[in-house]
Amino acid sequence: MFEDADYRLAVVDLLGAVAYGELSAFERLVDDARLAPTVREKVEMCAMATLEFGHVARLHDRIRDLGADPFGAMAPFEAALDLFHAHTAPSDWYEGLVKAYVGDGLAADFYREIAAYLDAATRDLIIASLEDAGQADFAVRHIRQAIADDPRLSGRLALWGRRLMGEALTQAQRVAAERDALTALLAGGIDRPGLDLAAIGRMFTRITERHGERMAELGLSA
Amino acid sequence: MFEDADYRLAVVDLLGAVAYGELSAFERLVDDARLAPTVREKVEMCAMATLEFGHVARLHDRIRDLGADPFGAMAPFEAALDLFHAHTAPSDWYEGLVKAYVGDGLAADFYREIAAYLDAATRDLIIASLEDAGQADFAVRHIRQAIADDPRLSGRLALWGRRLMGEALTQAQRVAAERDALTALLAGGIDRPGLDLAAIGRMFTRITERHGERMAELGLSA
Repeated sequence: MFEDADYRLAVVDLLGAVAYGELSAFERLVDDARLAPTVREKVEMCAMATLEFGHVARLHDRIRDLGADPFGAMAPFEAALDLFHAHTAPSDWYEGLVKAYVGDGLAADFYREIAAYLDAATRDLIIASLEDAGQADFAVRHIRQAIADDPRLSGRLALWGRRLMGEALTQAQRVAAERDALTALLAGGIDRPGLDLAAIGRMFTRITERHGERMAELGLSA
Repeated sequence: MFEDADYRLAVVDLLGAVAYGELSAFERLVDDARLAPTVREKVEMCAMATLEFGHVARLHDRIRDLGADPFGAMAPFEAALDLFHAHTAPSDWYEGLVKAYVGDGLAADFYREIAAYLDAATRDLIIASLEDAGQADFAVRHIRQAIADDPRLSGRLALWGRRLMGEALTQAQRVAAERDALTALLAGGIDRPGLDLAAIGRMFTRITERHGERMAELGLSA
């Protein structure tokens, strides 16, 4: 499949997007760890962050194997991801926890959906890079406890979860409109199956459903 | 030596200080990485930061082996290290680089001097935790290039290096005044050699000399 220059370009694009996503997730998790109520929780969040950072080097190696520059591959996605984080800076520890779980979960679902259309080696690398670094368990445990202690928190955090979803969709659409290679990838090729509009609709339905499941897991309405 | 409760207490103290030092160095390096001129340099600095963070877990394990709580052991050093970082927030990328090299070097020299008075296992763990994560080469390369491009930079960065030294000494004295166990460690015991005032003087001379060597390495006067 890599003889197809368009396919190679699309894969480099996707790897660049995931790599910059992991890098910015790392920075943001370390930053949000300042909001931790104790040093113990700060260390737990920083440990998750460093696991995410560990994926960046492997994604960069793969981009180099495909003959591209990793920093050039990440560049087109910097604006969208930086804007997402700028628009969703948590105002307290709990918003940071919800973002670590719900925001990373959304991004992972989205990349996994695209990875399904790729060769097995690329798909496996992307799926391994997106594995939950422990955020799920950590966030669920702390958020459920916090809501048990103060039930009023659930309304605010439910709104926050919706805002994360809205900002993620806004930035995803922006990327889709700008990156022809990625969009062409989803449309398929001679030797690759593609997505028609109905399939794209089903993809968004699946992403929305999983978002709802995560919110329910936190004890919040989606 | 660990049957001596005072000795055990002093070792836990020192391990706690180094662990909190590594944790705060990690947070500060990631934070200062924002000032990087390109994403490439940002990634390099974040990679060094995650290496420092990797030492925290090993230091915590050792504190637990000695029957103490790692977070309790770090707590007495939070104020001094947080103040050091608050008083030495870099105003640009170059100040951040000098701090990564000169500040971490100073701390490492200080802990290594104390570690010389400890049992071999503790000493080896501390020395391994303080190994340069690549800051030296990275900082020297970038700072020398920056001064070659703009020689006026050297005056400002030389002053900055002196300020780092001054702040480090201020906080070290504060810790020494407050932590009796650590000070007693340096004074020695029945089965351990200690330091007299002349020896403490020579220790500070060695630390100052090494600081001067690092500044010279950067092309700056100490």
